[in-house]
Amino acid sequence: MDIVIIGSGNVAAVLGRKFNAAGHHILQIIGRNAAAASALAYEWNTVSSNYLSAVNRNAGVYIIAVSDEAIPEIIKDLKLPGKVVAHTAASVPKEVLKKVTNHYGVFYPLQSLRKEMKGLPDVPIFFDGIDELTKRTLEKLAHSISNVKVVEAGDDARLKLHIAAVIVSNFTNHLYALAEEYCRQEGLDFRQLLPLIEETASSIKDMSPKLAQTGPAIRHDKETIQKHLDLLNNHPQLKNIYLLLTESIQQVPDWSGRSK
Amino acid sequence: MDIVIIGSGNVAAVLGRKFNAAGHHILQIIGRNAAAASALAYEWNTVSSNYLSAVNRNAGVYIIAVSDEAIPEIIKDLKLPGKVVAHTAASVPKEVLKKVTNHYGVFYPLQSLRKEMKGLPDVPIFFDGIDELTKRTLEKLAHSISNVKVVEAGDDARLKLHIAAVIVSNFTNHLYALAEEYCRQEGLDFRQLLPLIEETASSIKDMSPKLAQTGPAIRHDKETIQKHLDLLNNHPQLKNIYLLLTESIQQVPDWSGRSK
Repeated sequence: MDIVIIGSGNVAAVLGRKFNAAGHHILQIIGRNAAAASALAYEWNTVSSNYLSAVNRNAGVYIIAVSDEAIPEIIKDLKLPGKVVAHTAASVPKEVLKKVTNHYGVFYPLQSLRKEMKGLPDVPIFFDGIDELTKRTLEKLAHSISNVKVVEAGDDARLKLHIAAVIVSNFTNHLYALAEEYCRQEGLDFRQLLPLIEETASSIKDMSPKLAQTGPAIRHDKETIQKHLDLLNNHPQLKNIYLLLTESIQQVPDWSGRSK
Repeated sequence: MDIVIIGSGNVAAVLGRKFNAAGHHILQIIGRNAAAASALAYEWNTVSSNYLSAVNRNAGVYIIAVSDEAIPEIIKDLKLPGKVVAHTAASVPKEVLKKVTNHYGVFYPLQSLRKEMKGLPDVPIFFDGIDELTKRTLEKLAHSISNVKVVEAGDDARLKLHIAAVIVSNFTNHLYALAEEYCRQEGLDFRQLLPLIEETASSIKDMSPKLAQTGPAIRHDKETIQKHLDLLNNHPQLKNIYLLLTESIQQVPDWSGRSK
């Protein structure tokens, strides 16, 4: 397909690379950040522009890969009647694009994407569209770049998926960051934890995380928990999180009896 | 080396397999759980016993791989003067073994070990010993099974490492479990999050998790956070954790100004 990408950040960069690698033709990249847009244009052997008014009107699909907050500003100046136009935001309804085109949709990559990443990771794509043409176009594009999962997901499902993604990615990364800072302050080498981090993430491919739970909290090992809390007196932020998550782990058996 | 393993749980099983794979000879395995001990003995082509009184006294090293709580009970009946004896517990001081032998120490594998795991993961080993003979023996044993890290670590350092391990492994796994349960209740497929989980764990090999932080919390994206909180009203345990971790992520910049 002939594609125009609007945005030059992490999602734009990695999706663009995936489109390119799949043999699509990126007609143009439009970005406010001129240096970022022209660097990507160079990488993809295409042209860049800083102005939405200069948008190439000959593409088959337009992908708006900008931050949630930037979407309203961009669509204010964008009219692409008859074209398939999709944004990439999990938590933004597709209707935000209804003044841009009659074929609007969403193309949400459920993955942590960073411009600097070396390889191209597996990216499940959740697409949505106002009509069949939009849906089939985005679905086809998704299949061309994702060898894992391509699923239709409406606004509500995407918002819920985003919550789950925040939990397993943003919050998990924050625990890594807290542990790294703790190690730094205590003179320990955080990198010694990397094999454990990798194994923990990898083990849930084979077994439910509920069954994989180990450690002092699930064992109700009060003595070890108390030793840990005593040592965390100098780390109030971490101590707070240690207490809450320990308590939450010990609550888990209640799940089976939940009303919902 | 000739090794006797006391314990037949996850740590005993995986360390034993690593010893075996490294060409050591497991003389005997002793475990309260007769079925588990004899299954491992069969796997390693050795003998098992349920009685500490039957301990083979000809080994070079004795590894006590049992739960923290079980250690006092086991050592009560164990006398191995002149032998190198180590337990595998992070949060238990080495002195707990001083009535067993004059060469006591610790052999702590910093990894999530499960009997059912298919491969043998990388395992950093933290060792400690009361004297040079103990330290050198355990260090040599550690190097024979670990191609990642072998580090001497006293009681205090091990306890601190254990705290970091609880954060990056037990707590992280709990977030996976909460997300899995949330997906189940909302009719979403948790397995669609696996590529994201893997990428999040893997990305910190190349960059500090502090720099890798993304998501609504770090962007102070109040609108998205509010949408998520509204949807979490039916999930009070998760909502509580969402609030605390969002707040904690937003606190992070204070680290640079901390007194310690």
